Amino acid sequence: MNSRRSSPPPAGKPPVSGASPWRASRERRRDRAVKRDAVIRAAAREFNRKGYHNTSLDDIAARLEVTKPTVYYYVTSKEQLLFECFVAGVEQIRAAFRDARRLAVPARARLNAVLRHYGEAVASEFGWCMVRAEEQDLSPAMSRHIKALKSEIDHGIRRLIREGVQDGSIEPCDPKMTAFALAGALNWIAHWYREDRTLSGAQIAAAFVTFFEGGLRPRGSASQVRARAPLRRRVRGALAR
Amino acid sequence: MNSRRSSPPPAGKPPVSGASPWRASRERRRDRAVKRDAVIRAAAREFNRKGYHNTSLDDIAARLEVTKPTVYYYVTSKEQLLFECFVAGVEQIRAAFRDARRLAVPARARLNAVLRHYGEAVASEFGWCMVRAEEQDLSPAMSRHIKALKSEIDHGIRRLIREGVQDGSIEPCDPKMTAFALAGALNWIAHWYREDRTLSGAQIAAAFVTFFEGGLRPRGSASQVRARAPLRRRVRGALAR
Repeated sequence: MNSRRSSPPPAGKPPVSGASPWRASRERRRDRAVKRDAVIRAAAREFNRKGYHNTSLDDIAARLEVTKPTVYYYVTSKEQLLFECFVAGVEQIRAAFRDARRLAVPARARLNAVLRHYGEAVASEFGWCMVRAEEQDLSPAMSRHIKALKSEIDHGIRRLIREGVQDGSIEPCDPKMTAFALAGALNWIAHWYREDRTLSGAQIAAAFVTFFEGGLRPRGSASQVRARAPLRRRVRGALAR
Repeated sequence: MNSRRSSPPPAGKPPVSGASPWRASRERRRDRAVKRDAVIRAAAREFNRKGYHNTSLDDIAARLEVTKPTVYYYVTSKEQLLFECFVAGVEQIRAAFRDARRLAVPARARLNAVLRHYGEAVASEFGWCMVRAEEQDLSPAMSRHIKALKSEIDHGIRRLIREGVQDGSIEPCDPKMTAFALAGALNWIAHWYREDRTLSGAQIAAAFVTFFEGGLRPRGSASQVRARAPLRRRVRGALAR
């Protein structure tokens, strides 16, 4: 969810009669945003648990202990709910791209920051909707919108990979295939994380980024020691001469 | 498909009248296997194109230009067809594990061989069924069977990772998370490969394995040169003393 929607309920005192009517109206708007948020989160959990087609607005209303007309006060249709769940997950990744742009670090570090947020988003309650929304029977307009947002993220990852190859922080590679491999590994979290929750989303994302960075082939102390030994001997040999 | 089922049609002459009746029976069995194979491949293509629930046995019969009873001669139900498609894809990976066991190379090389076949299998016509069969409404027995085969492959990958960490060919890591990342990246090929077929399955698998091996962080000549420069200066300094 973006920060506007997910802002916590106002912590202060309840509206005092005689207080500024504008303040009361601001609080009503905030209250509505908080409730809309709760509707979207409840929908995400139901879609995640039962699938989109097997979930009705009645199920979502029942989970919130409200009536169906109350749900309709916040969204116009089940389709819109799915779309809002998709957007809520994807927005976490888009925010990570915006934040990364401000970091004065090599592109690989910026990419890692994005991938960590990507992993956490897929492990969140919105993961299923992010990964599966496109396959449901949605209106052409909604499908186009979802495709466009997915494409924006794909191209954002490819751009960071290209920048990393240019600044020397990423090994030269095919940006498109590498972006597909990264996104695929992360998207797949939505498939297994429901049944296997031994780690938190943040822990999974961190483990994945460590693997993405280093790959399978060993580096680090053992191989460095082996590579360095002859050089050190050469230094000693040179000193002895 | 396993080798028994996918053996090509007999290349020799047509059955000669007066030839051994046992030979004719063998050929009939082979002919049946070839036709059953064609039914399974046609089903894989239809499921891939329209989804499991939107495909009927009539569609598959129409694609083969035969009647529905002919299809029933080879399989008992649409469910069995989905299962056979799943097995046909997964069998390519199981064969890769068997072949890899015979290779006298470090575990990382054996793992790479398996992952290449895995990628090619997911990019094949059976990819959709391999990745999606579990989510369809199948009988409990069939679901269990599919889960067991998936688990076998998952554990086979984890075992090769552990062996690689032991023999020093793989960087120490969490075998479960690494196996999930590898399988996720490869499984996701089934999602995008239908729309983007600019590379062959073998090319995609090779690109993915290169990324899995090396990761994003640069190694190779450029970084070695940078790492070595101060040492070389030290050698020169030592010689000048």
